Amino acid sequence: MSNRLEGKVLVAQGGGPTPVINQSIVGVALEARKFTQVTSVYGAVHGVRGIIEEDFVDLTRETTNNLEKVADTPSSGLLSTRDKPDEEYCMRMFKAMQAHDIRYFFYVGGNDSSDTVRIINDQAAEANYELRAIHIPKTIDNDLMENDHCPGFGSAARFVTQAFGGANLDNRALCGVYIGVVMGRHAGFLTASSALAQKYYNDGPHLIYVPERAFEMDRFLADVQAIYDQFGMCTIAVSEGISDKDGNPMITRLMGEERDAHGNIQLSGTGALGDLLSKEIKKNLGIKRVRSDTFGYLQRCFMGCRSERDAREAREAGEKAVQYAMWDNVDGSVVIRRPVLDYSVDYDLVPLEKVAGKTRHMPDNFINETGNGVTEAFVNYCRPLLGDGRPESHRIRAPRVAKILHK
Amino acid sequence: MSNRLEGKVLVAQGGGPTPVINQSIVGVALEARKFTQVTSVYGAVHGVRGIIEEDFVDLTRETTNNLEKVADTPSSGLLSTRDKPDEEYCMRMFKAMQAHDIRYFFYVGGNDSSDTVRIINDQAAEANYELRAIHIPKTIDNDLMENDHCPGFGSAARFVTQAFGGANLDNRALCGVYIGVVMGRHAGFLTASSALAQKYYNDGPHLIYVPERAFEMDRFLADVQAIYDQFGMCTIAVSEGISDKDGNPMITRLMGEERDAHGNIQLSGTGALGDLLSKEIKKNLGIKRVRSDTFGYLQRCFMGCRSERDAREAREAGEKAVQYAMWDNVDGSVVIRRPVLDYSVDYDLVPLEKVAGKTRHMPDNFINETGNGVTEAFVNYCRPLLGDGRPESHRIRAPRVAKILHK
Repeated sequence: MSNRLEGKVLVAQGGGPTPVINQSIVGVALEARKFTQVTSVYGAVHGVRGIIEEDFVDLTRETTNNLEKVADTPSSGLLSTRDKPDEEYCMRMFKAMQAHDIRYFFYVGGNDSSDTVRIINDQAAEANYELRAIHIPKTIDNDLMENDHCPGFGSAARFVTQAFGGANLDNRALCGVYIGVVMGRHAGFLTASSALAQKYYNDGPHLIYVPERAFEMDRFLADVQAIYDQFGMCTIAVSEGISDKDGNPMITRLMGEERDAHGNIQLSGTGALGDLLSKEIKKNLGIKRVRSDTFGYLQRCFMGCRSERDAREAREAGEKAVQYAMWDNVDGSVVIRRPVLDYSVDYDLVPLEKVAGKTRHMPDNFINETGNGVTEAFVNYCRPLLGDGRPESHRIRAPRVAKILHK
Repeated sequence: MSNRLEGKVLVAQGGGPTPVINQSIVGVALEARKFTQVTSVYGAVHGVRGIIEEDFVDLTRETTNNLEKVADTPSSGLLSTRDKPDEEYCMRMFKAMQAHDIRYFFYVGGNDSSDTVRIINDQAAEANYELRAIHIPKTIDNDLMENDHCPGFGSAARFVTQAFGGANLDNRALCGVYIGVVMGRHAGFLTASSALAQKYYNDGPHLIYVPERAFEMDRFLADVQAIYDQFGMCTIAVSEGISDKDGNPMITRLMGEERDAHGNIQLSGTGALGDLLSKEIKKNLGIKRVRSDTFGYLQRCFMGCRSERDAREAREAGEKAVQYAMWDNVDGSVVIRRPVLDYSVDYDLVPLEKVAGKTRHMPDNFINETGNGVTEAFVNYCRPLLGDGRPESHRIRAPRVAKILHK
């Protein structure tokens, strides 16, 4: 028998958007409607900020058709925030929740957002306010503890592979060095996914640098030279978060630091890192054609590129969150397990403190020994997450014609 | 009755890749096989450089299945070059063509490539070597004279609209200023295509800057401030080629100049322009969240994003080139006309000198009076080129809930 705590459901989104985050919101909204103790389903506009400002929309007055269309739209349909609630901020959230008789809170986000849920949940207990608070995972960085992988990652990874698939073709046509800078502040999963763009023996990325390994400029330059000598071209995937052995981000060597409310340095929305690396290659290796692209915001919101499997899982994570709250009357963080590598998933609920504010890094067996590439284990891990029907490159295989003048 | 000049066909690609350039190559290869006077169809590897080096592949020893797969692959399957042939270079090309009994030359490229075809054709006449030389249009810049539009543009424009469609959603979720830097050295068509990303009344891009209008920093900053005041966010599309009133590219203010063999300054493969503009906005307007993405090489080779209409036309342009050479025994440049706005096309052949080395700019009636946006005429011009089935964004339309605490 289900929990009979009667009241409203509130759902919100935090942090950076993903291509499938709206699936989770819609999963919550549609599933919650099936429980009679739910009097309304509200959505908070601009995340936690919308809660303290009582900026709610009534999702029970939204059509199923439009909810499904929104689910298929990238980015945060309820809009987002970078605010990080402290004690006082949380008290204001309770005031608003109490005033509106909100008894179920679902927050879709990454590790900062899960920490927000944890704080609110603790304060609810202290304030003796009965509230079910559940965190629903979401991050293109794929860096949440306890999860095999996170909703949002598969779609962003698919973008990265399609981008590197094209970059391979482009760089092969005109020959040079190409650097693609990929998101992922502390975890290299998304950068590593570029490896799935390889189809032909000399396809790139030939070199992959993740934040889990200290970046050394000298070794980087030697790596590039070796690949360039071998193939006459070199394609490189590099994480925006690469740091030196002392943990200083390479990008801070170049530009002033801009920090957000969480104390994070701005790494995205600038082409500085790619330009820095290009300059070093030109200067030290004398290679003329060196180009860099910073994938920036495209990788988390480009329209028309998503993993259908990722979309389905994001939906299920939202549905499961409601089911845990209603049937089991518990708080926690929804996590995705993978009992079979290729491929099935199970959902589970873990205590919030197991996920909140923590970062999962790439395990050692996913990174090669020289720290400039990934292993077969990673490729096997990543492949199913990208979904089916990825575009594939094809090369002309016609035989060479015998030379006449240059025999 | 068709031309009975017997000999080989040679096809090559020049300049930057597009998502559909291989369609034209395959159009030539498959159509040429239907004419008995064609003894073989060769492809030159790396464009004109492959010709002087006799680096040919025999496309008559390639399967139709693989040719069709290559046609569906972005970028130059025969690889490309930035070499620009002079008189001496051309003589070496003739030597190679003569040695291999090549009598039909098809070169797929932009205005630099059409100039190459013109030079070779003139020299062939001078050398009394009978050669049919035809230029097949291709450029994401859409800047070839005599053409209503060019193969490659529609697919790149589709990428730009899907990128800005996503950027709209992302920027609306987190609120700030977003700048997307788009390719197009002298012509603003591709940057302008971003306008087709607008769906809702406050969707961006709110401001569009093309190289056809002088860029003034003060006016730019005033424009951004006005939009930001109105919407609490601002999304901007800017061409990599924007220049001041004296014709100096804005990017040269920032970095050293790197020129290619054609004397062109490097504008792509660097995030410098976006970073420069972001800095000016932060410094002068005091807006904190300012981000820029430079779409770079993704917009011309991203896998899995193309206009099917563009692909079909690129194929037809290749087929028509062969038909002109074989049935009409003439040289020239294939052009696309549009007798009906929305939508039909006709193909025609014009003398090479009408296209060679010239640049078509956006007509005045495509740019708004204030020089920071496009007109309805442009939107109507561009829409059909993007092809059908574009992804569409949807917003939650649920009503606001009445406030209780903040009444």
